[in-house]
Amino acid sequence: MTVRQLPLPELTGACARLGIPGIGLWREPVAEYGLEATAKLVRDAGLTVTTLCRGGFFTTAADLDDNRAAVDEAAALGTDTLVLVSGGLPPGEKDLSAARSVIAAALAQLAPYAAERGIRLAIEPLHPMYAADRCAVSTLDQALALAEPFPSSQVGVVVDTYHIWWDDRAPAAVARAGAQGRIHSFQLADWTTPLPAGVLTGRGQIGDGTIDLRAWRELVDAAGYTGPIEVELFNDGLWARDGIEVLEETARRYVRYVL
Amino acid sequence: MTVRQLPLPELTGACARLGIPGIGLWREPVAEYGLEATAKLVRDAGLTVTTLCRGGFFTTAADLDDNRAAVDEAAALGTDTLVLVSGGLPPGEKDLSAARSVIAAALAQLAPYAAERGIRLAIEPLHPMYAADRCAVSTLDQALALAEPFPSSQVGVVVDTYHIWWDDRAPAAVARAGAQGRIHSFQLADWTTPLPAGVLTGRGQIGDGTIDLRAWRELVDAAGYTGPIEVELFNDGLWARDGIEVLEETARRYVRYVL
Repeated sequence: MTVRQLPLPELTGACARLGIPGIGLWREPVAEYGLEATAKLVRDAGLTVTTLCRGGFFTTAADLDDNRAAVDEAAALGTDTLVLVSGGLPPGEKDLSAARSVIAAALAQLAPYAAERGIRLAIEPLHPMYAADRCAVSTLDQALALAEPFPSSQVGVVVDTYHIWWDDRAPAAVARAGAQGRIHSFQLADWTTPLPAGVLTGRGQIGDGTIDLRAWRELVDAAGYTGPIEVELFNDGLWARDGIEVLEETARRYVRYVL
Repeated sequence: MTVRQLPLPELTGACARLGIPGIGLWREPVAEYGLEATAKLVRDAGLTVTTLCRGGFFTTAADLDDNRAAVDEAAALGTDTLVLVSGGLPPGEKDLSAARSVIAAALAQLAPYAAERGIRLAIEPLHPMYAADRCAVSTLDQALALAEPFPSSQVGVVVDTYHIWWDDRAPAAVARAGAQGRIHSFQLADWTTPLPAGVLTGRGQIGDGTIDLRAWRELVDAAGYTGPIEVELFNDGLWARDGIEVLEETARRYVRYVL
């Protein structure tokens, strides 16, 4: 998504050339290019699919069919992790706690289906500014509480710096998630202000903002995480630039600010 | 601030006519109208000044002189409460915990000065989307932790629904703050999306959004709070309308959604 302006063949080629060993994919470009064709493209480039984004929206979707389809797509792509954005308040509702109960019930339906296909569900807490309309799960503590009824091989969490950097309880939650083997994805984005209208496309390039990304990487390391680290930026400015240039810049920033 | 388009004489007159017994004032319009003139205007209308907004910005201001001036102004206006927006990260810094330590140190300097003048400091936690640039205090728990070293008559917190509605730990913090006598202000605004660019002027009119305002009022009641309830909206749409009409609408919404 960081370089969504790049067609998948260019993206996979550039990743291979730059020594980026894996890519996180979103469902829409995969569907556009073709599921099997994407799987082959990534495989032939010698890359792995780190995660598939995304399932979820349990509180507003009518049924779980689309989430089961997302699980199937993840399996076909050869990743082991489906990222979940759980959904906000149903129209007219005001009870975030009730929304989280709906999410818990949906997980109980989806997790066994996913486990049978070798797919782990990764609950992503989203920044509290998205609580109403995108995700009633606002903290890593809440995401862990939703995950804990399930085996860690079935349900875990996403640690995304953009969403949790402000939370003084998040470092302890990272340690707990790591001890439980529930960090299923680690994503990086920086925090820059002012936020754009709609607050969806203002994630900062690595190093441009206020998040100590190296400190978070060290926290996640210390929690025992050894999986891939994804850079996930939604940023109008980056999308307007040459995609290869942005990818190269992101790789340089990663070395400078994260490693 | 909800009806900042209204000159103070019109505002105080309309409040008195509508049975609104008190107003929260901001420093800028008070300075413009004159401190003593404002105090007399409010007094003559039979109103109280509920709070003065605002002191703070401890992490970026060079010294405490301006905060001492805010305390003096609060005393001159006859309110007992100065609201504090504590400040975000200093330029180039990334350590929110260090910023909160700076805030704690500044409180220790300001609180005795304020107490001598009969002014309570009310720490306002701001929504986490403001953590970088406006307020490193993002939760009611953090605000209480900053207040607790001081007598409750000196330092307390602001409970503002807009900033804390998403936080599943906030209800318990409200109860604790009430038991300690530290709820020094209770402010209402609703949460509406999409947020505008800069996310400062999108606070929703009472009843337009996703916050169960009556439930929060009942929580604050149950915590033992008996002080004034302020409606504080920053909203470009409301500011563009006739101020008296907005004030009347707000009073009606308050009766319908809060009482």
